[in-house]
Amino acid sequence: MPVTRGEGARRRVLEAALEVLGADGLAGFSMEAVARRAGASKATLYRHWPTTGALLVDAMDATFRPFPAPDSGDTTADVTMLLDAFVTLVRDTPFPKLMAAFIDAAEREPALAEMHADLTRRRREPLLAVLVRAQRRGELPARLDLELTTDLLTAPFFYRRFIAHHPIPPTLVADVVAQILGPHTPGTGSTPDDRR
Amino acid sequence: MPVTRGEGARRRVLEAALEVLGADGLAGFSMEAVARRAGASKATLYRHWPTTGALLVDAMDATFRPFPAPDSGDTTADVTMLLDAFVTLVRDTPFPKLMAAFIDAAEREPALAEMHADLTRRRREPLLAVLVRAQRRGELPARLDLELTTDLLTAPFFYRRFIAHHPIPPTLVADVVAQILGPHTPGTGSTPDDRR
Repeated sequence: MPVTRGEGARRRVLEAALEVLGADGLAGFSMEAVARRAGASKATLYRHWPTTGALLVDAMDATFRPFPAPDSGDTTADVTMLLDAFVTLVRDTPFPKLMAAFIDAAEREPALAEMHADLTRRRREPLLAVLVRAQRRGELPARLDLELTTDLLTAPFFYRRFIAHHPIPPTLVADVVAQILGPHTPGTGSTPDDRR
Repeated sequence: MPVTRGEGARRRVLEAALEVLGADGLAGFSMEAVARRAGASKATLYRHWPTTGALLVDAMDATFRPFPAPDSGDTTADVTMLLDAFVTLVRDTPFPKLMAAFIDAAEREPALAEMHADLTRRRREPLLAVLVRAQRRGELPARLDLELTTDLLTAPFFYRRFIAHHPIPPTLVADVVAQILGPHTPGTGSTPDDRR
């Protein structure tokens, strides 16, 4: 899809929103500040985003490049690929700063919490799709709760970054995958007992 | 231990700090605001806490009542007891609001991130102690990474509360324990396959 003039302007505003948020935090985040940095009018911004909350959600979404759920036939490889991409997002992009601002803002504004919940749901979809296919192929127990498994596979990275403030070692993805999926997918991955 | 006059004053300040934070968020959190609400002088506050960050950490710590690691001999029961207490903390106290403010603040102030990391470490200790004993008894594989297992047992609750914004159903503790410890502790708990 070629980038239209409107799309280019939209993208410029989202980049400006990220810059404002990174520099001044949520306290400095306003339509006015973003418009000024983007070199756009406030009217233009309001045409696309009715509230600063909506603009925040789109800016956060723009830091995330969704890609189709991989389908190599190897569950461990597919899950590992998705989690690796996610670790890159958490480690090498402005996304976590945005998310931290969001976490605090959502405590005070229920509408933001709902938008954040929706964004999280969309971000989980590729991983969930990989697990659903693995279950259909009989690689995961038929009764395994795949939503919970998705929680267990992704939550440790958020926890390290925002709660424990520990670096994410290069081996963490493999270790999490082995401990969560290892016992269920004989032949497709390592198990907790043979990974050292 | 009887409550001394100094201890009573200290506790009043910590309660005031929680109230200020809950009402005005991090933006309104200052030594002055907390002193005013506690009916104490700023000098008194600075005598106990050199920075607002140190006061924040103590206030957050005060919302958490640590208790000795349970040691009933039943790993699943002990882990469940600790996680149930933790769910209560996340659901029914001002602790998550504080933590959300902290998550954002830590992005901008490395000293706060370090204090938060330390608090998290102390909060993990009872659970880690239960797992260490279970491993010594041979209920968990000798090579199982207990730090990672502690991450996996606790991270889903933070994730639900702050990232997915989903309610924590009454069954979640049992489901998480079954999926993380189930396969390793035959006889002491349910496994993913028999929990429905």
